[in-house]
Formats: sequence, C-alpha cells, structure tokens
Amino acid sequence: MAAQDFSAQEYADRLAKTRAAMAQRGIDTLIVADPSNMAWLTGYDGWSFYVPQAVILPSQGDLFWWGRPQDKAGAAQTTWLPADHLLDWPEDHVQHPDHHPYEALVQHLKDRDMTRGLGVEMDTYYHSAKSHAILLEAFGPRNIHDATGLVNWQRAVKSDAELALMHRAGRLTSHMHGTLRDGFHAGRPKNELVAEVQAAGVAGIDGIAGDYPAIAPIAPSGLEASAAHITWNDRPLAVNEATYFEVSGCFHRYHAPASRTLYLGEPPADIRRAEDAVLRAIDDTFAAAKPGALCEDVAACVYASFARAGYEKSNRTGYPIGLSYPPDWGERTMSLRPGDTTELREGMTFHLMPGLWTANWGVAITESFVVTEEGAKPLCDFPREIFTRPA
Amino acid sequence: MAAQDFSAQEYADRLAKTRAAMAQRGIDTLIVADPSNMAWLTGYDGWSFYVPQAVILPSQGDLFWWGRPQDKAGAAQTTWLPADHLLDWPEDHVQHPDHHPYEALVQHLKDRDMTRGLGVEMDTYYHSAKSHAILLEAFGPRNIHDATGLVNWQRAVKSDAELALMHRAGRLTSHMHGTLRDGFHAGRPKNELVAEVQAAGVAGIDGIAGDYPAIAPIAPSGLEASAAHITWNDRPLAVNEATYFEVSGCFHRYHAPASRTLYLGEPPADIRRAEDAVLRAIDDTFAAAKPGALCEDVAACVYASFARAGYEKSNRTGYPIGLSYPPDWGERTMSLRPGDTTELREGMTFHLMPGLWTANWGVAITESFVVTEEGAKPLCDFPREIFTRPA
Repeated sequence: MAAQDFSAQEYADRLAKTRAAMAQRGIDTLIVADPSNMAWLTGYDGWSFYVPQAVILPSQGDLFWWGRPQDKAGAAQTTWLPADHLLDWPEDHVQHPDHHPYEALVQHLKDRDMTRGLGVEMDTYYHSAKSHAILLEAFGPRNIHDATGLVNWQRAVKSDAELALMHRAGRLTSHMHGTLRDGFHAGRPKNELVAEVQAAGVAGIDGIAGDYPAIAPIAPSGLEASAAHITWNDRPLAVNEATYFEVSGCFHRYHAPASRTLYLGEPPADIRRAEDAVLRAIDDTFAAAKPGALCEDVAACVYASFARAGYEKSNRTGYPIGLSYPPDWGERTMSLRPGDTTELREGMTFHLMPGLWTANWGVAITESFVVTEEGAKPLCDFPREIFTRPA
Repeated sequence: MAAQDFSAQEYADRLAKTRAAMAQRGIDTLIVADPSNMAWLTGYDGWSFYVPQAVILPSQGDLFWWGRPQDKAGAAQTTWLPADHLLDWPEDHVQHPDHHPYEALVQHLKDRDMTRGLGVEMDTYYHSAKSHAILLEAFGPRNIHDATGLVNWQRAVKSDAELALMHRAGRLTSHMHGTLRDGFHAGRPKNELVAEVQAAGVAGIDGIAGDYPAIAPIAPSGLEASAAHITWNDRPLAVNEATYFEVSGCFHRYHAPASRTLYLGEPPADIRRAEDAVLRAIDDTFAAAKPGALCEDVAACVYASFARAGYEKSNRTGYPIGLSYPPDWGERTMSLRPGDTTELREGMTFHLMPGLWTANWGVAITESFVVTEEGAKPLCDFPREIFTRPA
C-alpha cells in the first residue's frame, strides 16, 4: 500500500476521527506502533516493523513518522508526509544491548513538548514491554495512557476506496482457492500445492497483483487438522483425509481470508454432518448481518445452527478484517461472540469462522463479508462445499 | 519444525545451557514468549504467536507449554512435552477488551508456586507492554527480571543437526536465486517474478521442501532501492534499473538469507564500483571470520574494503541467524559492528550484509555463513556478481 491509494480528504477524515477519539480519552499525543495503524494514518509501507517505529500524532498540528534511519527513504516514498516530518533514531541503536531506539523517541517527544497525556498501544506486537518501561521512566505513569485499539476502532467501517481494495483481495483469494482445487490430488507433497496457491495469490489474476498476506497459509491434513494453526509440511496428500486451507489474498495490504475443506475420497458421515451444519450457519449469519444487529446476535446464528445439528460451540466465530501486517489479519477490536454488543454498521468487514473440530479432524469453511442493508455480502466468490476428488 | 528434528539429548543440552544462564542471572522461572525460543526449547511450531503463549521453564523440574486452548493439539503434535504439561487460558479471553490471557498465566504460576525470580523477555514482539503490566501487578517489580536475549544467546553456536538444516535452507535460497535470474526480464511485472521465487522456495528442490521464511521477499527497484525494506509491487522491470532481492529459504524454520543485485542493461560505473567494494568486503570478511575473531574485527573488514573504494560506512553489517519466526530472521544478540567484542566460535552462523546505498540506488550482495577454523563457509552457493541481462 502507498498513500496514493486514498485521497487527501480520506486521510484528513482518518486523522479527524482518530483525534476525536483521542479527545474523548484525554490523550494529547498518540504514539502509534501498530504497523497497520501507521499505514492507515500515513500510507507507510515496508517490512521494517521488526525494529521500533511509530507514527506520532498530536491532538493538533503536524504528525510525524519515526523509525530507523535506513527506512526514512521508504517513508518518503510511501507516506504523504513531508520530508521534515520524518524522524529517526541513531542507526547504531539497532538491536543493541546497551541502547534502545525509544531513548531517541523520548528526546523527540521532549523537544516537541509532547510529555503529557501520551497514549500508547500497550497490547500490540510492536510496542514492547521494554519500550514501554523507557517511556514510563521518562514521563511517569501518570502521563502514559493505554490506547490499545484506539486507531483500530476507527478502521472498523471501511470507505468505498477501502472496499474496492478488499474486493480485489477477495478476487485473489478466490483465484487461490481455484488453484488449490485444481492441484489437489492424492500423493502430491503438500508443500508443492502450497507453493502453487501462494504463487497464484502473488502473481494474481486479471491484472490484480498480490502482496504478502499477514498470515501464512494454514493447511493441516488428517489428524493435524484437529490443531488450529498448523501450517504445512511435505507429506503427500492422502486418501480418506480432510485438509483444510485457510488463505487470504492481499491487495495493497487489504485482506479477504477464506477457508475450505478438501477431501480425497468420500467424506464419512460425521464430516458431512459437520459440513452441513457449517454451511447452514453461514447462510443464517449472512441473512442476519445487517446494520443494527449486534455482534453477539450474529454469532448466535452460528451456535444455533450448530446446536440443531447436535454440536455445542460458543467460542468466537469471527472478527473484523481489513488493512493488516503480520502476524495477524484481524483488527483486534470487536468479536462475533457472546457478550459483544457492538452494533454492526454498513461497511464493516468480518471474517466469519464457523469451524468444527474433533480430536480426529477439523472442518472449517469460512467467508469474509461486508455488512450491507441486505445482509452480508461475501468478498470472495467460489463454492463453499467440501471439495472432493475420488480416490 | 517439530521436536523429532533433534534428539532427546540435544533438547536436554538446550535446557541445561538455558538453566545455567538462568542461574547466573538469578532467575528461578523463565517465561519464554519468543516463538523462536519456544521452538528451540520444545519443538513447538504453529502460526499461533499472534495470541499470548509461552514456555514456562523453572530452574528445575518440569517445563510447560502455555497457550490458547485450540492450539494445544498443535503443541501435542509438535513438542516433546507430555500432554499434562500443556497449559492454556480460557478461550473467551482471546482478543477480549475486559480479559487478558496473562491473567490465566498468573494463576498457573501461583498454582505452581512460581511467584519469585521470574524472568521475562521484555524486548520481544510477543510479550506486550500490557502482558508485562499484568505480571508486574501480580508479582511486583522486585520479582520480575528482564531476560531479553537469554535463550537467544544459547542458540548462537549451532549443533551439527542444526547446521544440517541450515545447509538445506541454503540449498533452497540458492534455488530461489536461480529462479530469480532465469525470470529476470525487462517488462515483467515484479510481482510475477516474486511469485516464482517464493514458489521455488516452498516447492523446493531435490526433495528439500520449504517452509515460510520469517521475512517476506524484499525486492525494491530503481529509486525504491534507496529504501531498505520495500517489498514489491506490480511495476514492470525496467531497463537501466538495479533491483535487489533479499530472500531466504526456510527449512524446518531454519534460515539462510542472501541478497543479490540484478540489472537490466549495463550498470553505470558507480554501481560497478560499489559492486567491486562489496565483493572484496565479502572475501576479506570470509577470510577473517574464524573462531576467536571479534564481531567488531569482522565488521572492520567490511569498512576497510569500503574505505579503500572511497565509501564511508560504519553501521551494522551483519547479525546471527538460525531458527526463526516472523517478523525477523535475526537472532537479536551480537552484531557485526564497532564495539561488539563478542568472540566468534565455531558453529556460529551469520548473515553478512555489506550494502551500499545512495539516494538513487542500492547495491546489496549478502551471504549467510558458518564460522569454521578455515574462516567463513557460505550456506548458499551461487554467483555473487551483479546479474545483468542485456536490454
């Protein structure tokens, strides 16, 4: 992604929304270390999040990108910020036992009199406990507020420009699953198939080029599929085994994940029964996912469908998606689960995950969707049923 | 990776080394949240690091894997731990605004009387400031010690079994770069080429199957290449532009990164001069990288070669590599740079990164190597020179 995907007005709207949320929480200066939030505010893109970096957003006036010196050129190329709003830390602080980049951040903040009412994302991957300790030491606990999720929440309702990118991501996902079905044959080492599916997502289709998704393909087979986050290995695809593939196309950092279950041979009755429950759950949920419905209501459609088929399940069955960087393509705000009373709004986007696992197999058929007045509209378009190939 | 890549004795040795380091630092119980360290100690593998998880290692007695309930099956499949040493947190705490998985970790620690002398990795991606605050609140600052890097340092010298995996990763890297050279033609959208290179790394060669590398391909062209961490886009490869590709094969989570610069047409004199300086730097460094040499001495070889060619550079020019998970394939311990007086030991592995960047282009030719009595032995085997194709 780069800043030119969106108009100057859209970036101005994003800043205004974020600043309104800051004001509500009494935050004067927000330090945004989540790369997805950095990108959403400024367009910044690069695989540089393995070192400290942030966007510094004061309640008024200029905002700043701050990062490693060698990444400033990337910030100049991808963000809409002028060159004198790109700040850095001393290159020799990189992964150094006795120095830390946040020491330089403290100085930048002091130089700009941003020393009170600081908001930081305490529960993100890229603001470490050590980084936080340095801020606490410099400014004191009374001046540091937890702003986890503050920007993420502003991202929940997607703009038309964002939805256009997500629909393209969905085209990529559909293309990846088509490649998967074509290549799913007994005896093939699974890594060969994963290579084809990934390549389809990056080479793309109809001029839509793919980016790296925030999560690698999840692709367990047989007994492995009873685990949730196994990636792949080189074991040949075997007859009478279910494999499920969870993959996402990624277009300009926007995602549209979808999972399917594939089977070599004829699935046994218990897997077919689980499939039926999952497919009905998707239909019911899609009908219910209209503006005004609550997250927990949408989730209840899944549980009700499962209960009718004799399965008991009440854990989280979906989460919001959009712009993202590794290691997660979820937005980490609301969830489709009991107790979440967030109201759905038009233009929100979710990954619906109705999955059923036993000790011996897993059936996952999942869809990404946009909330519309007519209910959920899927971002992908390909068959949901378990794909089978005669053994 | 799964536990069966290594003998029970090797895991016992790893635990013993780690516990000796714990004793030196006065740590009674180590909480290991870095997924690379978790894998090194137990074999655990899965894309589950986007939610809280850890290995809990007391100074004596049993160690535990702790994570999300739905990932326990994956822990049972990939680690050498018995089932009753797999602990979890309530599934409904996942990404929940009012609950946090570390509340359950606190309870597990209290239940086992592990409440004093706790060591945590404060500067890793997967132990958040929020997680840390929960531990501080529960046990008090006097009982929490920063153990960043403690396990990472134990990983520095690779076993023969590890080196065997890294040499296979190097075979994958060489194969990826071969695919890159074959496919590097003017007018091709870069994402198509990246798709081929990634697929080569995962499909593998000679029965060596690839895993997902910890960093996506870095592949900037022309002016983009003045930035350090730009990934790719769909712009066609252009004549009279340098592109550099930094990629790594990944075999059972072990890496062997290497970068090359490619050029369509005839590179101008200044790029050729930079190339010459970089190639000499690699030769000089490889000769010097013997057991007993210091990290800063090895780095000095690079700077001296650059100085002879008229380039001034003194920033970090390499770092240790091995087992890793996103977002970084470095080990984050020592560095090849001034002031680092760590002694090289036989079996250490590094990614040597002599790169030269100007405002208009970047030349990066990098190699991964093992320290041996005869100097550095590369993990990959393919031409280092700038690959050119007549326009």
